[in-house]
Amino acid sequence: MKKPFKKPEPGDKVEITLENGKEIGVLLESHDRGVLLLKLGSGYNLGFKKEDVSEIVVLEKGGVVKVDEEFKISGKKPVIDFILTGGTISSKLDASTGGVKDLTDANELFKLYPEIFELCDVRIKTPFMKASENMDSKDWARIAKLVGKSLNDSSVKGVIVSHGTDFLHYTSSALSFMLGKLNKPVVLTYSQRSSDRGSSDSRLNLICSAHVALSDVAEVSLVGHASSDDDYCYVLRGTKVRKMHTSRRDTFRPVNCKPLAKVWGDGKMEVVSEYNKRGKGKIEVDSLFDDRVALMKFYPGQSPKILDYYRKNYRGIVVEMSGLGHVITEGKNNWLPKLKEVIGKGLFVYAVPQTLYGRLDPYVYSAGRKLQDVGVVFLNDILPETGLVKLGWVLGHKMWRGSVATKRKMLENVSGEFNDRLGFEDWVC
Amino acid sequence: MKKPFKKPEPGDKVEITLENGKEIGVLLESHDRGVLLLKLGSGYNLGFKKEDVSEIVVLEKGGVVKVDEEFKISGKKPVIDFILTGGTISSKLDASTGGVKDLTDANELFKLYPEIFELCDVRIKTPFMKASENMDSKDWARIAKLVGKSLNDSSVKGVIVSHGTDFLHYTSSALSFMLGKLNKPVVLTYSQRSSDRGSSDSRLNLICSAHVALSDVAEVSLVGHASSDDDYCYVLRGTKVRKMHTSRRDTFRPVNCKPLAKVWGDGKMEVVSEYNKRGKGKIEVDSLFDDRVALMKFYPGQSPKILDYYRKNYRGIVVEMSGLGHVITEGKNNWLPKLKEVIGKGLFVYAVPQTLYGRLDPYVYSAGRKLQDVGVVFLNDILPETGLVKLGWVLGHKMWRGSVATKRKMLENVSGEFNDRLGFEDWVC
Repeated sequence: MKKPFKKPEPGDKVEITLENGKEIGVLLESHDRGVLLLKLGSGYNLGFKKEDVSEIVVLEKGGVVKVDEEFKISGKKPVIDFILTGGTISSKLDASTGGVKDLTDANELFKLYPEIFELCDVRIKTPFMKASENMDSKDWARIAKLVGKSLNDSSVKGVIVSHGTDFLHYTSSALSFMLGKLNKPVVLTYSQRSSDRGSSDSRLNLICSAHVALSDVAEVSLVGHASSDDDYCYVLRGTKVRKMHTSRRDTFRPVNCKPLAKVWGDGKMEVVSEYNKRGKGKIEVDSLFDDRVALMKFYPGQSPKILDYYRKNYRGIVVEMSGLGHVITEGKNNWLPKLKEVIGKGLFVYAVPQTLYGRLDPYVYSAGRKLQDVGVVFLNDILPETGLVKLGWVLGHKMWRGSVATKRKMLENVSGEFNDRLGFEDWVC
Repeated sequence: MKKPFKKPEPGDKVEITLENGKEIGVLLESHDRGVLLLKLGSGYNLGFKKEDVSEIVVLEKGGVVKVDEEFKISGKKPVIDFILTGGTISSKLDASTGGVKDLTDANELFKLYPEIFELCDVRIKTPFMKASENMDSKDWARIAKLVGKSLNDSSVKGVIVSHGTDFLHYTSSALSFMLGKLNKPVVLTYSQRSSDRGSSDSRLNLICSAHVALSDVAEVSLVGHASSDDDYCYVLRGTKVRKMHTSRRDTFRPVNCKPLAKVWGDGKMEVVSEYNKRGKGKIEVDSLFDDRVALMKFYPGQSPKILDYYRKNYRGIVVEMSGLGHVITEGKNNWLPKLKEVIGKGLFVYAVPQTLYGRLDPYVYSAGRKLQDVGVVFLNDILPETGLVKLGWVLGHKMWRGSVATKRKMLENVSGEFNDRLGFEDWVC
């Protein structure tokens, strides 16, 4: 190193010298001791290994990004209520394990990505900080109530919920059913890389979420990378989206439908599908839920005895059947007699597609027709995850608990969970 | 209709007059009374509604396609053993239900698609006719033994297995493990539309399968439509393929890898990935299998009590975990104590990705590290279905039944079930 550092501090505008040239940016707090984290003029955060930096010169002291200032309501910009619930977007590198750990407070996130404050005043709410695999229906209901409060607050323009990715699509489904027809946008977002990493997808996802929260798309939507490039985000329907890759930034894919829209970091939006527009009314949160529902996946050779376990412990199950909706219908593991028995004893059994993509059709093969005869109900092109959440929500309501009422409600298109116009061309996986 | 039909019969070359022009082709047996089925000069079978046909003229009596002749071995062409096991490719429309039913004998299929005989002599074997959801490990073993016999017959160039689509990927996995390193190609194929329909995908899938069976790709592969167009087929690795759509013809997709090759109807092949080449040795079929294995999918809020059911009834389970490999690790439904208990009592628990695409990584989040601590083994980028089949096959062998030996074998890349070089760019879903 040619010169000693002039004690550069987070917030300083600096110029660093690397082997191949120089970079200018604002120094951010880095949680990795070996890495300098810089916010470039483009808004991107980039990490540099300290050993690769031969010089660092402070061009301007602090103030460029006011990292130490509290985020205050300007009173001049539209208000977004921002609900942090945990997940990778609220996490940072943990040098001791090489893994990640939670940010200690919400401001840490916004210090790394202050761009959102140029668009809106942000009111931060943190009901809890959880990995999404640790959430359950009580957490979904809690988020729904909090979102409902914001939606019915006339000073709020829209709501963003940041969330872990693993089961974000369960929460987006739950909010879709619990919030009903919306008056304002409710946007769920995430990141696949912790927010303090230079390669994090937080920046684009956050800014695009803000644009959607301020738009007229009054739907429960999931906003995140459309591709592995940092170019634009998809706006995806809450009931027809699924995490399809363990680690890619564009992990959330629309299933059996097209995206609602595409949105760019500069606010440009391209509408792809019809959506519910912003309105003036108030909404009513309906977060009743019956936890006695289960999801299971059928596989060849599986013994139907497992249905006894479900009959004893649950009110209803969602079964991922094969193809157009099949299970074993002959031989020693024939499911038909056991299905007839457990359904007769009161268990609701709903069929969903194990392929994820496409629509069930019980009329093509005799297996499907026989399953209908014993009382299995086919849920068309619904996602298995959405089917489970819907069944829990429906059974949470006394008025829909009879077998006829349950079936009718389960087959009603409550929140876009069925795509009645699904065509072959909708396969954009 | 201008003239009465001159009694056209299947096999006759005919010219039909439609509102917009004429078509010439060979009349095929049609199982739908209202439809005339014609094989055009291009090889495509097309169905015409009888009410749209104003005239039909017999140009040449029979003989063009010898539909009534037995398919005989010419002795001059390479021999392919063709094993029919059932499924849509062996089915026809059933006018009484509007669904489909099995062809009554194998020749019905080849009468509709005789093109394969131009390439090879076909020896047909029909061990059973089953929908794939009704198959179990005994059927997989039976097919494996039959295929093994053919592979060790020096007069045979390659083997084709036609099969139902629903669980074709289970059978392709099972054959991959049971047959080991191959000396000749073993091709599994299918159709999504019954073979007597004009829009059937049987024609291209059959002819491409024959080209692959005669090629040097000595792998268990699945050959079928690469897109919804009738242009070319994918050759897909048996352990890394999954049915991803209920009804599209290109339903089988490579997961976490690229296709082995592309193949066109005229025999052109484009190699995409490395593969095992045709060799001279004999193979040994290893079809041992332990049925006491199960596949389950984890969902948020799920009670870990279900693990007791599996512990009582199974030797090992494959759990579709969320994200990089997570289940509930806190609160009243914490899975960690129960996992520790059932693993301590001898149940093997293997983690696979619920996202299907991507690779598990237990080191990023504390949930993954804790699961490893209680004895859960992470199966990288394996497909859940392949994981189940592999576990049953491994536990079928006395020498791999101890917990250390099982784990070692489960983590060994036996038949391309892991892609060690998996990159982000391999997402061709």
